[in-house]
Amino acid sequence: MSNDTLQIRRIGIDTYHENVAYLNRECAIYRAEGFQALSKIKVCANGAKVLAVLNVVDDSSIVLPGELGLSEQAFNQLNIAEKALVTVEHAEAPESMDAVRRKINGERLSQEDFDSITKDIVDTRYSKMEMAAFLVATGQNNLDRDELLYLTRAMLESGERMNWHEALVADKHCIGGIPGNRTSMLVVPIVAAHGMLIPKTSSRAITSPAGTADTMEVLAEVNLQPEHLHDIVRQYRGCLAWGGTAKLAPVDDLLISVERPLGIDSQGQMVASILSKKLAAGSSHLLIDIPVGPTAKVRYMRQALALRKLFEFVGDRLNLHLEVMITDGRQPIGLGIGPVLEARDIMKVLENNPDAPFDLRQKSLQLAGRIIEFDPDVRGGQGYAIARDILDSGRAMAKMNDLIQAQGAKPIDLTPGTLCHEVLSEQDGVVTHIDNFQMAKIARIAGAPMDKKAGVDLLKKLGDKVHEGEPIYRIHAEFPADFKFAQKLAVGDSGYTIGNEEHILKPLVPFY
Amino acid sequence: MSNDTLQIRRIGIDTYHENVAYLNRECAIYRAEGFQALSKIKVCANGAKVLAVLNVVDDSSIVLPGELGLSEQAFNQLNIAEKALVTVEHAEAPESMDAVRRKINGERLSQEDFDSITKDIVDTRYSKMEMAAFLVATGQNNLDRDELLYLTRAMLESGERMNWHEALVADKHCIGGIPGNRTSMLVVPIVAAHGMLIPKTSSRAITSPAGTADTMEVLAEVNLQPEHLHDIVRQYRGCLAWGGTAKLAPVDDLLISVERPLGIDSQGQMVASILSKKLAAGSSHLLIDIPVGPTAKVRYMRQALALRKLFEFVGDRLNLHLEVMITDGRQPIGLGIGPVLEARDIMKVLENNPDAPFDLRQKSLQLAGRIIEFDPDVRGGQGYAIARDILDSGRAMAKMNDLIQAQGAKPIDLTPGTLCHEVLSEQDGVVTHIDNFQMAKIARIAGAPMDKKAGVDLLKKLGDKVHEGEPIYRIHAEFPADFKFAQKLAVGDSGYTIGNEEHILKPLVPFY
Repeated sequence: MSNDTLQIRRIGIDTYHENVAYLNRECAIYRAEGFQALSKIKVCANGAKVLAVLNVVDDSSIVLPGELGLSEQAFNQLNIAEKALVTVEHAEAPESMDAVRRKINGERLSQEDFDSITKDIVDTRYSKMEMAAFLVATGQNNLDRDELLYLTRAMLESGERMNWHEALVADKHCIGGIPGNRTSMLVVPIVAAHGMLIPKTSSRAITSPAGTADTMEVLAEVNLQPEHLHDIVRQYRGCLAWGGTAKLAPVDDLLISVERPLGIDSQGQMVASILSKKLAAGSSHLLIDIPVGPTAKVRYMRQALALRKLFEFVGDRLNLHLEVMITDGRQPIGLGIGPVLEARDIMKVLENNPDAPFDLRQKSLQLAGRIIEFDPDVRGGQGYAIARDILDSGRAMAKMNDLIQAQGAKPIDLTPGTLCHEVLSEQDGVVTHIDNFQMAKIARIAGAPMDKKAGVDLLKKLGDKVHEGEPIYRIHAEFPADFKFAQKLAVGDSGYTIGNEEHILKPLVPFY
Repeated sequence: MSNDTLQIRRIGIDTYHENVAYLNRECAIYRAEGFQALSKIKVCANGAKVLAVLNVVDDSSIVLPGELGLSEQAFNQLNIAEKALVTVEHAEAPESMDAVRRKINGERLSQEDFDSITKDIVDTRYSKMEMAAFLVATGQNNLDRDELLYLTRAMLESGERMNWHEALVADKHCIGGIPGNRTSMLVVPIVAAHGMLIPKTSSRAITSPAGTADTMEVLAEVNLQPEHLHDIVRQYRGCLAWGGTAKLAPVDDLLISVERPLGIDSQGQMVASILSKKLAAGSSHLLIDIPVGPTAKVRYMRQALALRKLFEFVGDRLNLHLEVMITDGRQPIGLGIGPVLEARDIMKVLENNPDAPFDLRQKSLQLAGRIIEFDPDVRGGQGYAIARDILDSGRAMAKMNDLIQAQGAKPIDLTPGTLCHEVLSEQDGVVTHIDNFQMAKIARIAGAPMDKKAGVDLLKKLGDKVHEGEPIYRIHAEFPADFKFAQKLAVGDSGYTIGNEEHILKPLVPFY
């Protein structure tokens, strides 16, 4: 044992998206406090290295003076055996922080600047603070269109890229913010049944109550190895899988882990994030869904149009056939919010059940129709009718069953959480507003998406008549603490406004 | 034990300026993963509460499923006994983040906005990411002069405020960046010997190799209780203490803990930081030292002038008599860099030792002279001569000895670290440049200021002749790993440039 090495010890602490190293304060080799002032260290072992934030430990049962502890994330990244010997160095701030500081000073950055920033982020050289600085410096109107193109390209090239070896690879993406908006799980089977390739890899929810991957996971495995995913797509023309295993635009995941808790959601970052992920997934044709409404991410039509131009500018330059649909974002789509409740709605639509939520069916058909029109053999304006025929004939259901079987079917259990609280109307009238943000929050606090059966089940939607004391929605949960938190939230603000007919929120977009 | 409480456990991990809570993944009451997506929790116990970042623990020897672990910082803040029962809630993002997001969008903030932001920061509602977002959003030219005034006032009012019950309370402050620039330890005894009140509370070094508190600590105790500090000041007219116990403008310390590692050092933040601290310390008259030079914080005269105006604008509106001195920042002041080496230089000046560094003596006399001229009984232009008389007569030394005895004398040991490496000139010539930043870095990596005896001892300064192979400075360290890192750094870049007479860097400021 050389006189400046420490033994690696895995510390069973999950530090989420940040690497942490634990050094005993009495360590004779490295002066923990001297290092701590710098806060970031580089751990080196046989060529492998990892950067980590330093925590100083005063308890030798956690880490001994001759050891260096690594959090689960850092240990997995370094990928060496426990007790292996490592050395420790001061980690300097990443060089590309110079470019971030130039951006803070108002300079315009080049493609090379964005390349070096994304490379340093992927190599986990950036702390969360540094990522926050980058996000704020490039947020809002601080990126011009060309810089946005550079950023998107840099993010795209930060990871691997799928190649489906076909000329037309379709995909769709919603910018988010509308609870229950699980149209992908209807669009994919319809479009794949038409014969078009639609290999959809989705994210899990981050601050929303469910992502497509969370909801699909109620019905089937979504955590597929790349080779398995390719087989399924080749055989069935589509899939509904989690995108996390594929290392597509990995810098995006790291930025999101900082952006979401900060609540800074700039249009530029959103465009770069979506387009880099879709291009990395091998898409050639992409339909973007931008819902507009007072509690949607985009509140005004002029913002939706500006965002559309940004998508088009970057998409065109990266050789992506891109179309944008501006949709009605006044209220949640469907009735269920949360994985199991949303899966229930989707299955009803696929089964052509008369109780199926009409808005979810209609929106999915509109989107699927537009994608089907990417097919050069389809006449403009015929997509919707084709999509409807596929759904009504049961071919979409059959395709969905194929995908479920291929990905690995789960035992079907669509009953929501047993802890159930009904929220009642405090007056007679009609539903004039539903707050998307508050409904998402209640479902999330109730436990969604981690608890698949948790969430909110809407009993009334915009324009529906209600009487005083009549239930307007149900909160479902599985754990008492979550159940209590969610009820408390709904007492503070139910998310619903009951009023007169003439105050019903009008749609900004004529949709169906 | 109620069914939603956990037992508190102190975890011996020092997480520096961030509270961390540790929750076992198998905790039956709270769903660790659901909480983790939100990343911040509120821990409540009998009215006391603390906010903390959540880490999920997979090792029950660190924390059991029925326990909640708290890092040392969080445990001390909550201030309850181990095993006490607590409940856990979701911590929402602080409300004032709305104002930060408005600032990111380019809005101008009000006094009320800055008040609520600083209050949330002091209450530790902000994560480091959120503080980084605030710092970038208000960095560089993003604050106008009025906003800077609001921020300074909000920071001042975030903490306690000293009152010395005298009309003239003097202080001085250097904006930093020049190694060895420990003039306060000469200015305070000189000014106090003149009879003017100068209760100097200083910071410890954060990224520099020594702060005044670190260097004074070589000679005397600096960690004084407020009552003791007041007694000393009343009796001796001055002190040289650490300001950390006094809770002055606490938001400043929290912001610095994020700003420094990010390397974002905006003029606005600097002005707000310095003036809020000085006003909180009860100063009525303040002299600001702005060194200018190519490796100083301020590189150009025009920047120094702009910064002077900012200090004057805010100082005047907060009823502070403020003067600015722009000084020569081309190279380190004195010879020693690091607490013991700097203390040695200072004692030589006080003792009127002929070997005392001339630049340190002259600069201190200039600064002390300007402060002495705050005294209405002193004729303009006479301050320097008064200061020089006080120093030459030994009255400054006597005053320093009084302060050392009053604060608590330490056994005097001014020998530097025993590990010593001489850096040699690679050619004949004269010293044309010395890089302040690199010299500070070498001293810091050698162990300063934690290891009092570590640092750099300059043997040559600007304009000095050197021969090939002649030593230009010595690196001192106490620990082999630090010693090795510092040598490696000096091999990469010694910080010195040797060249011809005509290339000696000219002063931007005529100084003495």
